Amino acid sequence: MQINEAGGELGWIERVRAAHAGAAGNGLALPIGDDAAVLDIPAGRQVVVTTDMLVEEVHFRRDWSDPYSIGWKAAAVNLSDIAAMGAEPTFAFVSLAFVRDEAVETLERLYNGFVDCLNRYGVRLAGGDTNASPQGLTINVTQLGTVATGQAWTRAGARVGDSILVTGALGDSYGGLSLLLQDGLARAEKSFPQLVGAHRRPQPRVVAARALAALGKVRAAMDISDGLAGDLAKLCAASGVGARIDAALVPVSDDLKAAANTLGREAMQMALIGGEDLELLLVVSPADADAVRAAVEDTGIACTLVGEIVKSGVRFVGADGQDALPPGGQGWDHFSESVSRAS
Amino acid sequence: MQINEAGGELGWIERVRAAHAGAAGNGLALPIGDDAAVLDIPAGRQVVVTTDMLVEEVHFRRDWSDPYSIGWKAAAVNLSDIAAMGAEPTFAFVSLAFVRDEAVETLERLYNGFVDCLNRYGVRLAGGDTNASPQGLTINVTQLGTVATGQAWTRAGARVGDSILVTGALGDSYGGLSLLLQDGLARAEKSFPQLVGAHRRPQPRVVAARALAALGKVRAAMDISDGLAGDLAKLCAASGVGARIDAALVPVSDDLKAAANTLGREAMQMALIGGEDLELLLVVSPADADAVRAAVEDTGIACTLVGEIVKSGVRFVGADGQDALPPGGQGWDHFSESVSRAS
Repeated sequence: MQINEAGGELGWIERVRAAHAGAAGNGLALPIGDDAAVLDIPAGRQVVVTTDMLVEEVHFRRDWSDPYSIGWKAAAVNLSDIAAMGAEPTFAFVSLAFVRDEAVETLERLYNGFVDCLNRYGVRLAGGDTNASPQGLTINVTQLGTVATGQAWTRAGARVGDSILVTGALGDSYGGLSLLLQDGLARAEKSFPQLVGAHRRPQPRVVAARALAALGKVRAAMDISDGLAGDLAKLCAASGVGARIDAALVPVSDDLKAAANTLGREAMQMALIGGEDLELLLVVSPADADAVRAAVEDTGIACTLVGEIVKSGVRFVGADGQDALPPGGQGWDHFSESVSRAS
Repeated sequence: MQINEAGGELGWIERVRAAHAGAAGNGLALPIGDDAAVLDIPAGRQVVVTTDMLVEEVHFRRDWSDPYSIGWKAAAVNLSDIAAMGAEPTFAFVSLAFVRDEAVETLERLYNGFVDCLNRYGVRLAGGDTNASPQGLTINVTQLGTVATGQAWTRAGARVGDSILVTGALGDSYGGLSLLLQDGLARAEKSFPQLVGAHRRPQPRVVAARALAALGKVRAAMDISDGLAGDLAKLCAASGVGARIDAALVPVSDDLKAAANTLGREAMQMALIGGEDLELLLVVSPADADAVRAAVEDTGIACTLVGEIVKSGVRFVGADGQDALPPGGQGWDHFSESVSRAS
């Protein structure tokens, strides 16, 4: 069934509403479906808001990503931004644009992936908008959360001498994307399912962030969505400091090492510049580094000390003492490198 | 200058940030530019959230709408949803997708229109996302506001015997669109500048809504974005009631009457089914109708009693006592009628 046979926009909205949302409660003051959503905010908390758009042929390709994964990722990238503030995600809003002859099954799978990712982290869909599109799918998600007043993590709190940690392993999503570009879906998924999975259904570090928020020791943070090199440079700029990363300490999965071999690339470089990791970049006092690492690892996620905050300059130093990346950092930019351009 | 010469996405974000946003204060707890925005919510207030996407060739055409107007309208349609809840708009978030060779001047004009509309109603830009697009412009806006706890207007509060009022005049935007379709921009703007203006730069009823919220007499409300006929049917469904509209009372501008003549249409029918009016549909106790009308008119906006809530059925009754529209109501659906399909 195509969307234009399903009762048009209104019919589709009703289907989504019935399937995924509805009743008020738990902070949603009205049932979904009025002109706007009304949310209760607990006393002593601030509201945290982020918004991200995913565009077909720029952020995803349908021959690589099934609709469920596209929906999952749209939720995950937004939840990751909320986690990076040390906040608790609460309600999501999604705008979709799709062509008139889009299959309803595709949209339902997309919504299922989106809502499954929300549900995993206790988040509810609270509203949205559906639209016609002349070409391709576009998904915009706005994710709200709350944080104890004054306790949000920012990029601006790093001080010289602080320790720099990262969660998980870096570069897996970029490894998956590189394999998809080189080998196509079937071969890439057969050889490196973990890396393809990291690219298609990344896991935002919501649980680890909440454990760290309870601990109260994070001085600065952001999520790694444009590559460690580029994102660390942004954090340092916001804090007015520099950083020195020991490249040999940057966590790289065995899968990425093996994939880098078949790709003729350096795994460590892929880990430094690859986008869409959705891992946390954390800056803490050296005295708190062990406690922070332990709190993250208690949630089942690795956490690794990779360097320290210095006065100026952002350097990635290899085992030989030489720069492992050109100074200045490199980031992931969807205008210069994207799934469509790269293909 | 094209966007891909202006430093890529990061350069553009910095330009926007410097021009339009920045400092914390007045409810924005952090300067713009972290992973997410952090907002203070005053005690005793709930958060109101709406999101709307505008897609080129579906919601707007560049040969009819200049970039400033496109930006203005993206803000206005979202502010209208906040007004329709009786809430005060506070912060906006905008996601943009545009082709790599988009002119920076176009995007700047779009942002100027967007921010000018926000500023008129005391709203600040608090974050966003910019993206590549394989084709055309897509704009998604998420608008936040606050409302006194428990005081949000909903669609569900109408009771049998209540009075139905509308602000402004209906159908002007649809009149403008119809003229653009028939005559093109130059001729339409010369003959009916008011109607073309209503289509390109609609005025959300934020000020009237705030006056009414202070009065505290609105029982149910929504904004008229899909035509009175379709929107009233939605309000009645949410309230479990019906409505009887005296079609002769529906406010129609002299411009629309004149334009309807040249279009060979009935002005009253255009007023009933036309989309994007951004006027308020208000349901109040008959005892409060005069006070409500006076409160709106004190803000310089017309307010007209057009009918009453009945037990069931939504009827638009003409001067001859016959149905002025087929029973059941008709709405504006961007899947079945849009600027691209209609052209």
